[in-house]
Amino acid sequence: MSPKPAAPKDSLNVPRFVGVPTFMRLPLSDRAEGLDAAILGLPSDSGAPFRTGARMGPNAVRQASIMLRPFNPYRGNIDIFEALKIADLGDAPVVPGYEMETLVWLEEAVDRVVSAGAVPCCIGGDHSVTLAELRAVAKRHGPLALVHFDSHTDTWDTYFAERRYSAGTPFLRAVEEGIVDPARSIQIGMRGSLFRASDITQSLDLGYDVVTTDEIFTIGFAALANRIAMRTAGAPVFLTFDMDFVDPSAAPAVETPEAGGPTARETLALLRAIGGLDIKGCDVVEITPTYEGPGQITSLLGATVMAEILAMIAQYRQG
Amino acid sequence: MSPKPAAPKDSLNVPRFVGVPTFMRLPLSDRAEGLDAAILGLPSDSGAPFRTGARMGPNAVRQASIMLRPFNPYRGNIDIFEALKIADLGDAPVVPGYEMETLVWLEEAVDRVVSAGAVPCCIGGDHSVTLAELRAVAKRHGPLALVHFDSHTDTWDTYFAERRYSAGTPFLRAVEEGIVDPARSIQIGMRGSLFRASDITQSLDLGYDVVTTDEIFTIGFAALANRIAMRTAGAPVFLTFDMDFVDPSAAPAVETPEAGGPTARETLALLRAIGGLDIKGCDVVEITPTYEGPGQITSLLGATVMAEILAMIAQYRQG
Amino acid sequence: MSPKPAAPKDSLNVPRFVGVPTFMRLPLSDRAEGLDAAILGLPSDSGAPFRTGARMGPNAVRQASIMLRPFNPYRGNIDIFEALKIADLGDAPVVPGYEMETLVWLEEAVDRVVSAGAVPCCIGGDHSVTLAELRAVAKRHGPLALVHFDSHTDTWDTYFAERRYSAGTPFLRAVEEGIVDPARSIQIGMRGSLFRASDITQSLDLGYDVVTTDEIFTIGFAALANRIAMRTAGAPVFLTFDMDFVDPSAAPAVETPEAGGPTARETLALLRAIGGLDIKGCDVVEITPTYEGPGQITSLLGATVMAEILAMIAQYRQG
Amino acid sequence: MSPKPAAPKDSLNVPRFVGVPTFMRLPLSDRAEGLDAAILGLPSDSGAPFRTGARMGPNAVRQASIMLRPFNPYRGNIDIFEALKIADLGDAPVVPGYEMETLVWLEEAVDRVVSAGAVPCCIGGDHSVTLAELRAVAKRHGPLALVHFDSHTDTWDTYFAERRYSAGTPFLRAVEEGIVDPARSIQIGMRGSLFRASDITQSLDLGYDVVTTDEIFTIGFAALANRIAMRTAGAPVFLTFDMDFVDPSAAPAVETPEAGGPTARETLALLRAIGGLDIKGCDVVEITPTYEGPGQITSLLGATVMAEILAMIAQYRQG
Amino acid sequence: MSPKPAAPKDSLNVPRFVGVPTFMRLPLSDRAEGLDAAILGLPSDSGAPFRTGARMGPNAVRQASIMLRPFNPYRGNIDIFEALKIADLGDAPVVPGYEMETLVWLEEAVDRVVSAGAVPCCIGGDHSVTLAELRAVAKRHGPLALVHFDSHTDTWDTYFAERRYSAGTPFLRAVEEGIVDPARSIQIGMRGSLFRASDITQSLDLGYDVVTTDEIFTIGFAALANRIAMRTAGAPVFLTFDMDFVDPSAAPAVETPEAGGPTARETLALLRAIGGLDIKGCDVVEITPTYEGPGQITSLLGATVMAEILAMIAQYRQG
Amino acid sequence: MSPKPAAPKDSLNVPRFVGVPTFMRLPLSDRAEGLDAAILGLPSDSGAPFRTGARMGPNAVRQASIMLRPFNPYRGNIDIFEALKIADLGDAPVVPGYEMETLVWLEEAVDRVVSAGAVPCCIGGDHSVTLAELRAVAKRHGPLALVHFDSHTDTWDTYFAERRYSAGTPFLRAVEEGIVDPARSIQIGMRGSLFRASDITQSLDLGYDVVTTDEIFTIGFAALANRIAMRTAGAPVFLTFDMDFVDPSAAPAVETPEAGGPTARETLALLRAIGGLDIKGCDVVEITPTYEGPGQITSLLGATVMAEILAMIAQYRQG
Repeated sequence: MSPKPAAPKDSLNVPRFVGVPTFMRLPLSDRAEGLDAAILGLPSDSGAPFRTGARMGPNAVRQASIMLRPFNPYRGNIDIFEALKIADLGDAPVVPGYEMETLVWLEEAVDRVVSAGAVPCCIGGDHSVTLAELRAVAKRHGPLALVHFDSHTDTWDTYFAERRYSAGTPFLRAVEEGIVDPARSIQIGMRGSLFRASDITQSLDLGYDVVTTDEIFTIGFAALANRIAMRTAGAPVFLTFDMDFVDPSAAPAVETPEAGGPTARETLALLRAIGGLDIKGCDVVEITPTYEGPGQITSLLGATVMAEILAMIAQYRQG
Repeated sequence: MSPKPAAPKDSLNVPRFVGVPTFMRLPLSDRAEGLDAAILGLPSDSGAPFRTGARMGPNAVRQASIMLRPFNPYRGNIDIFEALKIADLGDAPVVPGYEMETLVWLEEAVDRVVSAGAVPCCIGGDHSVTLAELRAVAKRHGPLALVHFDSHTDTWDTYFAERRYSAGTPFLRAVEEGIVDPARSIQIGMRGSLFRASDITQSLDLGYDVVTTDEIFTIGFAALANRIAMRTAGAPVFLTFDMDFVDPSAAPAVETPEAGGPTARETLALLRAIGGLDIKGCDVVEITPTYEGPGQITSLLGATVMAEILAMIAQYRQG
Repeated sequence: MSPKPAAPKDSLNVPRFVGVPTFMRLPLSDRAEGLDAAILGLPSDSGAPFRTGARMGPNAVRQASIMLRPFNPYRGNIDIFEALKIADLGDAPVVPGYEMETLVWLEEAVDRVVSAGAVPCCIGGDHSVTLAELRAVAKRHGPLALVHFDSHTDTWDTYFAERRYSAGTPFLRAVEEGIVDPARSIQIGMRGSLFRASDITQSLDLGYDVVTTDEIFTIGFAALANRIAMRTAGAPVFLTFDMDFVDPSAAPAVETPEAGGPTARETLALLRAIGGLDIKGCDVVEITPTYEGPGQITSLLGATVMAEILAMIAQYRQG
Repeated sequence: MSPKPAAPKDSLNVPRFVGVPTFMRLPLSDRAEGLDAAILGLPSDSGAPFRTGARMGPNAVRQASIMLRPFNPYRGNIDIFEALKIADLGDAPVVPGYEMETLVWLEEAVDRVVSAGAVPCCIGGDHSVTLAELRAVAKRHGPLALVHFDSHTDTWDTYFAERRYSAGTPFLRAVEEGIVDPARSIQIGMRGSLFRASDITQSLDLGYDVVTTDEIFTIGFAALANRIAMRTAGAPVFLTFDMDFVDPSAAPAVETPEAGGPTARETLALLRAIGGLDIKGCDVVEITPTYEGPGQITSLLGATVMAEILAMIAQYRQG
Repeated sequence: MSPKPAAPKDSLNVPRFVGVPTFMRLPLSDRAEGLDAAILGLPSDSGAPFRTGARMGPNAVRQASIMLRPFNPYRGNIDIFEALKIADLGDAPVVPGYEMETLVWLEEAVDRVVSAGAVPCCIGGDHSVTLAELRAVAKRHGPLALVHFDSHTDTWDTYFAERRYSAGTPFLRAVEEGIVDPARSIQIGMRGSLFRASDITQSLDLGYDVVTTDEIFTIGFAALANRIAMRTAGAPVFLTFDMDFVDPSAAPAVETPEAGGPTARETLALLRAIGGLDIKGCDVVEITPTYEGPGQITSLLGATVMAEILAMIAQYRQG
Repeated sequence: MSPKPAAPKDSLNVPRFVGVPTFMRLPLSDRAEGLDAAILGLPSDSGAPFRTGARMGPNAVRQASIMLRPFNPYRGNIDIFEALKIADLGDAPVVPGYEMETLVWLEEAVDRVVSAGAVPCCIGGDHSVTLAELRAVAKRHGPLALVHFDSHTDTWDTYFAERRYSAGTPFLRAVEEGIVDPARSIQIGMRGSLFRASDITQSLDLGYDVVTTDEIFTIGFAALANRIAMRTAGAPVFLTFDMDFVDPSAAPAVETPEAGGPTARETLALLRAIGGLDIKGCDVVEITPTYEGPGQITSLLGATVMAEILAMIAQYRQG
């Protein structure tokens, strides 16, 4: 019952459902020092313009993640917990209903991870939490190459009452703040109806590379993985994964579902094709657990995506 | 398909599920002028410290309310739509994640109703929306006698990061702002575990009369109704009903459920015992629809509570 | 796997979830001959004016009924399957979307049970199926004394497009057809808002005794049981139980839920107080299984109510 | 709160969850005059031979449709509300449990739209409602070319008790009535087990072109789109989309789910490949909302399909 | 993020949904030494004869328990965490599908708590886990006075294939093993249908005092509390609470629901009336989370019951 | 209501929802004599190491299977009930919580089917039930060629407390017992994270052919079908289908979901490509109905898979 850091519980000896669920049954810790990567929940939905409840996302992902096992056979049978020292740091505190104050608190929590030298691996929360992460990570690593999976660009300027901070605006704000370098960045998965004709071009105008869901399949996973690697080559990378990238059949519990996305298999195949990224921070966001039934498939897929990103980091470090 | 104001659809002629659901199938209008009472949704959950999703409350209550019929046999077979001219005004706009800005917008929307001479009958939303309503109603009618059904007092001073505005603070703020007269006011239904020993006494210290759930049954419904009438006699009344007053078996979909409350039958019997209130504004709040299944029993009970309050208003006006 | 008639499976030897679920794990049969009572599903919802899905009611009640055990300790520890020969006859066929044709088919199926000398114990289906039952039972036993539990009187004249046959009209039709004797009949549980002031008086005008939900508690269960016995004394009785008699907290999955009803404990206590009825037919109706979650509490309560009625019949026969 | 016709609410200014949900937040109107297209709910499930509840379909689709935005980037960035004047007309009245009477009422409601010169864009309801639509549209435009997406042919002759009108028979009836020209018509998506060997050939014998789900993928979307355009060229088209065309993983809440269909992405890609149809009427049918959880993915996909059809109409009119 | 033992997180400073949920937000520990009481999950459902899934019970109760606050106003405003040093020890390991082996492992885990001098406060798990607890507690404290809330006696001899260990047999086994003294013990809440006439008398024959649900209300809560205190006076007490004691409307997610139980308010009032028990061990069992919807009312009530028992212990210690 | 063996109810005459649901509405029988194939439920979840509830699987699959029709157009329009005499035998008895005893009882029940000369077509239950089936079938037919669809190999040696019998071990046990010939056997669909690097190689080392999910798509369905036919040629085949082979979007209600599997359409296309197998026994396992919502898509797909296997058997027999 008191596992050592970086040694998750063995699900062949103790059933998965035994014990308080942490991410992949990792030890719960309150310090990032000495870790290579740290799981950190960012349970805020104050930036959510439509469906709410992402505040319950981190624990839902933890609960589903107990299914996952340490070996990743898609990257040379790597044991991610031998390759990386990881712990679950619990959640950052938030101020529900106060988006601005929440962003400050989230940034402080991520900053502690970054300052300790660990890669923050965050579980949202709505997509506005990524701005707080980018600020903390860029403070140490400089302008970041963003690898952004999503069905929306999230580069709008303002939302209701001309508020500049919400789940729809972080990737315009990040460019304005100079913490993301759009010329090294790519947005992948855009689809569906638009508010205005400029919804896609606003990202292109900022300098982002944009790949729609349709283009993912025209280009092919391998070529797209290569394009991502080329685009970000040499830069510190921040990978953000909005679960609405995936089709609602495989990810129903998201804030702003968009019909017509990739399946879970296609999504994982694309992620597994990607390599060579120097990931300094990452997240999986926008899971709203009350919008799905007891099968918890969105949370399970979200946990699986995070485990794939951890394997990506582990493989990169092993060279 | 274009019903006249104050003439809801007849559910013996057109099935209830036909048409876009408005409150009790009332006509949808954008003006309060000429109305005696107006249904107004206040779809904000920016003040919710625990479960979120009350932004979906107003439409969930509308959807369940189509079950209800116009005659109230508990107050002399009154037809509430003959006694009162009522319409459904839709929802006030909100700024999700920005509690302060939201309170301003909500107050403006309620103010338009009050200014038109109609009684605002609001559907929340978390309990912080009541502060906006109280401000608008008190502006016209002066300090209000609050009749407050809830399992919590909501008279705490601050919440996370010392924020002064949330669903846990409106009835301290209202006293501070002079818009509620605690000496004419009563809080009914408090129960359950407390943060601090002072959770109840803080209300008493402010001057509120406080009746716990246990005391409701000790006192009896008739005597309690009399105590409410005496307490508020002659004053303009604001009646606010937090659905967590009721036991979670009958109202599972609330923000902060508290086990051990009255049943639906007891709740309605208490409301039906109450009379003689000069209601200037009222609301039913804290319904979070994603926290219940397809039976929608919380929304149905919430709609029934609102219909009872409308009958209370109608009866009072008929003298 | 081939139990003999009137010998349900023993849940101490074979777990309840083993086998295709029949009512209380009774043998499935296709003949009523030789039986004292027969379970018959009437899976029609063509008469439902609001929520639909009661076609799935009979099997949902069967599935929940496997929880029940043969001994009833409330009537002298009677073993209902020793006292009565009972089998589950499956369902009557129906013609979905064709209310008139469905009523004919249902009547034929019930008639076969009645003709075989068995008491039809039916599981609905919407409340219009009771008219078919009453026709078949009255054909053999003459005008019936109706004991009717419901939150609505179901004595309206017509519904949409002036249709005379629906779940809202059977107990006016039955009086018109002379198959129910209102002077020996009683309706119990009426409550909630009304379409018109006459919703209750229309039943009184027909000659029914009517007891509202409020009156149930004013009168008391024992006195009410006595009033029922007196009202029906000497007459052949048909007992019909609409699940919306019960509060939605205990019976959320019904066609037209009405907030403020008795709890499950109060409901069963009232039924257990009742005796001395010469029951010639009975039913439990209006369960719409898709309107509740996996706990199936409405179906379980419906099954329990039917088991209580079976015990009532068994006790009456034992004198 | 009182938007002008053809100007839906802007979801960047007012959150989507604010206000009574109409289709894509369009204005609610009671007149079709002056409109290019009109959304009309047909909330009947009297024709449903298996799962019921499609009466709740129109409002479920409206509720999900508030996610959608006006620009369609798949047809030249068309703004469908600039290209077409559209309003939401609410629902047609129905007579639950009376299929024949319901078909009359539905036809009258659609007829009013057609007579006003607007294209009826209907939301079902079970598939029998399409017969009513076809009758109204053919009255004005003559025999129609049917473009029919479905996993079943719905060309059976009779169902239970030899009833000729149900969700399984409209496309035989329509040929018999001369309102559909099978030689210009095509049925797409048939799959799964059959009642009889003739289930598919009965459609071919009537003169329909039939494309199974397997053939969709053998032929390819572009070639199939071309085949549809050739088949219907020059004729007035009625496009009907039964949601069970799609796999149950993406559309679980349908009346008769059939495992093994296209994904949502494949479905939308096929629709987006189709062009050049002179659509005089269309519908999306068979959504039964109680058969899915809170994610509402069937309703969201149904709304998206309707939005794609609207874009198809808009593009055709722009030439 | 690293709270000290016996100091749960303050929900006025950090929102309840922040952080991995432990019981009432207590610190998670792996040692019972120095504690007055210890929360321990017993996640086994190998003894469940009907519905399964109680293995998920402990974490569901933890998740709901974050709603609860430290002060109990029903026993003199006691702060249970000032009165008692408590921690959450996580779960005991189990061997799913191996009831005998599981009982051994559970006993060992409870034994470690008892040996450390702390009161084990366990969350089930099916009711067979109580046998393991009784063995561990009796080893130290001698034969125990059982205070048993349940709708079933659980004193059957064997179940399927004559297995002697299951959720239906622990309180016969405990008497046979001499670890419970039936003459000091009481079973409260029995109701519903029976397997055999002897279902109740078998407990009486063993020497238990038995109080049915009906008798609870005949006797009255105060008198019953007194009877419990008298029965157990001077003896070491084990209090076990099977959630099916409560009506399924308030506790739908249980293994063997029994219609007709007390409400949540009645249940808590009874518990709050009880005092003077020298509790050496306790549990809340039989919660099967997948059998309820997102409102989690069974888990919330279970957590509340446990919090009341903790207050009972605290008050007893304060004398 | 008393259909003759091998003549299921006609869903064009009697609606599917009428009657107690058996597999595809087949007659319920208690004897396998004279049958070609027999549906047998194996409702045990005592071997489940993670999610439980597969005890409810057989009846959930029956309930969904009523959607299916007798003709299979993918194998020459074969009517499976003309080609094969089939009945539903109900369920084998089990001993919940006693894995070893359960395996004995299950084997006896399957043995009765095999001894009668019928092919046992079983519905699980967790995957450990397959070991019981293999034992019974191999007793008559000798070592079996296993065709195993699953995302896991289930060839681990022991689980918790070194138990050798669980859902994770049957295909190692079967090789050890000599009842499966790994050299004629193939495992298809493995994917996801691993406990250890050897999770896949342990199967290869035993002599199984193993095809991962990725390889299914690399190889192609036709080539894979050929590889299966070649591998098993001439041997008696046992086909086992673990529903977690499929992606959780199409099969959410399984014991150990694994993100990234084939869709339902791909799954059925693969099965339909397979032929020439001399199937002596088969099953569909691991469905846990409480883990999905009312759409029941996992159960429907499971029923469809079983119907495809029945068609496979029918086609093989017809030569």
